[in-house]
Amino acid sequence: MSNRWGTGRIESFSDGVFAIALTLLVFDLAVPASSFDDLWRGIAHEWPSYLAYLTSFITIGGLWMAHLGIFRRLQSANPTIMRLNLLVLMGVAFLPFPTGLMAKAIRDTNAERAAVVFYGVTLLVISILLRVLWDAIAHHPELLDQSVSRREIKPIRRASLPNIGFYAAAIALALAVPQAAVFGYLAIAVAAVWRARGDRSPHSARAEAA
Amino acid sequence: MSNRWGTGRIESFSDGVFAIALTLLVFDLAVPASSFDDLWRGIAHEWPSYLAYLTSFITIGGLWMAHLGIFRRLQSANPTIMRLNLLVLMGVAFLPFPTGLMAKAIRDTNAERAAVVFYGVTLLVISILLRVLWDAIAHHPELLDQSVSRREIKPIRRASLPNIGFYAAAIALALAVPQAAVFGYLAIAVAAVWRARGDRSPHSARAEAA
Amino acid sequence: MSNRWGTGRIESFSDGVFAIALTLLVFDLAVPASSFDDLWRGIAHEWPSYLAYLTSFITIGGLWMAHLGIFRRLQSANPTIMRLNLLVLMGVAFLPFPTGLMAKAIRDTNAERAAVVFYGVTLLVISILLRVLWDAIAHHPELLDQSVSRREIKPIRRASLPNIGFYAAAIALALAVPQAAVFGYLAIAVAAVWRARGDRSPHSARAEAA
Amino acid sequence: MSNRWGTGRIESFSDGVFAIALTLLVFDLAVPASSFDDLWRGIAHEWPSYLAYLTSFITIGGLWMAHLGIFRRLQSANPTIMRLNLLVLMGVAFLPFPTGLMAKAIRDTNAERAAVVFYGVTLLVISILLRVLWDAIAHHPELLDQSVSRREIKPIRRASLPNIGFYAAAIALALAVPQAAVFGYLAIAVAAVWRARGDRSPHSARAEAA
Repeated sequence: MSNRWGTGRIESFSDGVFAIALTLLVFDLAVPASSFDDLWRGIAHEWPSYLAYLTSFITIGGLWMAHLGIFRRLQSANPTIMRLNLLVLMGVAFLPFPTGLMAKAIRDTNAERAAVVFYGVTLLVISILLRVLWDAIAHHPELLDQSVSRREIKPIRRASLPNIGFYAAAIALALAVPQAAVFGYLAIAVAAVWRARGDRSPHSARAEAA
Repeated sequence: MSNRWGTGRIESFSDGVFAIALTLLVFDLAVPASSFDDLWRGIAHEWPSYLAYLTSFITIGGLWMAHLGIFRRLQSANPTIMRLNLLVLMGVAFLPFPTGLMAKAIRDTNAERAAVVFYGVTLLVISILLRVLWDAIAHHPELLDQSVSRREIKPIRRASLPNIGFYAAAIALALAVPQAAVFGYLAIAVAAVWRARGDRSPHSARAEAA
Repeated sequence: MSNRWGTGRIESFSDGVFAIALTLLVFDLAVPASSFDDLWRGIAHEWPSYLAYLTSFITIGGLWMAHLGIFRRLQSANPTIMRLNLLVLMGVAFLPFPTGLMAKAIRDTNAERAAVVFYGVTLLVISILLRVLWDAIAHHPELLDQSVSRREIKPIRRASLPNIGFYAAAIALALAVPQAAVFGYLAIAVAAVWRARGDRSPHSARAEAA
Repeated sequence: MSNRWGTGRIESFSDGVFAIALTLLVFDLAVPASSFDDLWRGIAHEWPSYLAYLTSFITIGGLWMAHLGIFRRLQSANPTIMRLNLLVLMGVAFLPFPTGLMAKAIRDTNAERAAVVFYGVTLLVISILLRVLWDAIAHHPELLDQSVSRREIKPIRRASLPNIGFYAAAIALALAVPQAAVFGYLAIAVAAVWRARGDRSPHSARAEAA
């Protein structure tokens, strides 16, 4: 019976999806030709697009770092992990859609709330999928790299995955003050990148080089 | 005479095409500005786009897993395999076109049937190309990794390739009830991901780590 | 003095550009909503787009195979090779532009000739750049992998690079009969893929596995 | 405590972003259907787009070579490097936006100056980020590959990073003569590619092959 995959191509395929989703965000940035008479003003006027761009870029960057942290510890993947990883990638590849919607809807009293909530729910779902992915791995320690001790699993989970509670709170905020929630999403993304930890100790890196 | 390729760059190039085709699908998702007065309704109204997105995403994911299963067993590629692989990638890269067409044509009585059949025929052709690719490999066992025994080849073929018969049936269904056929395509894609099997036994993975 | 690069990241970066250029071609395929009343007819009516898509896809596929053949033989790259490779990639990344132009201009008596010639000139320039790249390598045999003997260099050049003469002839044909020239470009691309040769002998592949 | 990352996936992820940003630039090239009556003239009329395309393509190529030079010397990355690298990639992924703006604004007396300055400021910011990234590495020599001697660090910094002063000067020029500044950006990009140096000496490359 053969039901394991090596992680090499899963990582390179996932890196591709993360990198493309990140880079496609630029298509939501545009200044209409009607603003060319006063272009500086026209550029400044697009601030909701830049805010949405910045938030999604850092969010995907943080998700990529979490993904990196998970797969560096994997020795091989079972079918459940393959499927969950595909779902995580679907969420990441989907993100440019709510990003563009939010960029267009900020400052539109009717649409703003729905767009900001929709964006937040997408991020919440991706966070939940990432946690389910890590839990699926934690239940199969035989899939882990032998350098990962069982005692590490729990703190890694706590430290490396975006905080589901934060997204729930930001969505609640979005129902009341949508624009504030956007900055909340940005803060969560920055914090996720900030807290990300590598998986090699300074010591082992030096040992490896020796 | 030199007519073999190592599989490293073929895999990374193919991963790129799969990852990009997957991620580009998001461009077919959009809510027209005219729906911003009631954005939740506007978002919900786009369900055919989400259905098409979901189906194509999972389909490409399943094709990637089939591709992964084939190339992990290859030791090197001959010219026939290179050409067939290029044709498979052309099918995958082409898929966003019928996907977008289907998303726009669902609910349009005149166009729906043609769009759903056209989408199904594309998937049928890709499935046939994948089978031809595997058959081309099966005829040249010297290309296979030495860990692959001759007795494995037939079951792998049966297990890892999308079912051509299923697509033929779904296309027949599309002629009668187009919308039902779309769910058929989705079901085939989910089943393909579900049945995909890795190519390392739990035992060998552990042995390799030791 | 340090002026060599390892080829690993050059190859993965180049693979990325080839794969993306290939996959972006799908954006030139579209059926206008006005054709939805008779969608089969609308799909068929877009044949110039499919012809342009097919030609550019196979052309880029053939260029990628030529690139693969060149870099598999390289041990390391000097600054000249880096710059020439960047120019080749610029040509490849540029190709979707003349492709789209040609797809739209076929059947337009005024624009057809210019578009088909412009497309051909782009392919001619890429072919010349590839040959210059290989010549730059041939002048520095110390950059080559040690398994490549000096006697191989000339036949590889003859065999693995697209034929500059063919493109010149097709451009001349385009001045007289533009539509025929498009099929000429397609034939050149198919021939390039057909003639591509791997760089491992069947014997060495088997030896390596042993 | 684990706070180091191996550089493999960072490089492949970064390569992806560079390659995609480079290839997406082609979307700013288009000839309006209204120019099809005299297509050669229509193609020629788009020269500002080609100039912007060429400049951004070579600029990203040069940035990629600088990135390659930095990461080849890294043994592992700490959190600061991960974050700075993400910011560099954000700049690169953002570049198609000011590129498109500049292509459209050249020849528009009102918008030209602002667009050319905005483009230059983006390049200046990316250059500064790259320098900060290299400085962050220079302060942690334990992250460097052991083959990199301390005495190399300063000249590498001087040689391999785009010149911040040049961009400041070109922006000043843009305030007076915008179109001249565009050629200045192009010249800086060409010079950056021209000065890029590999990180293997001819000697070590040959030694490795032996």
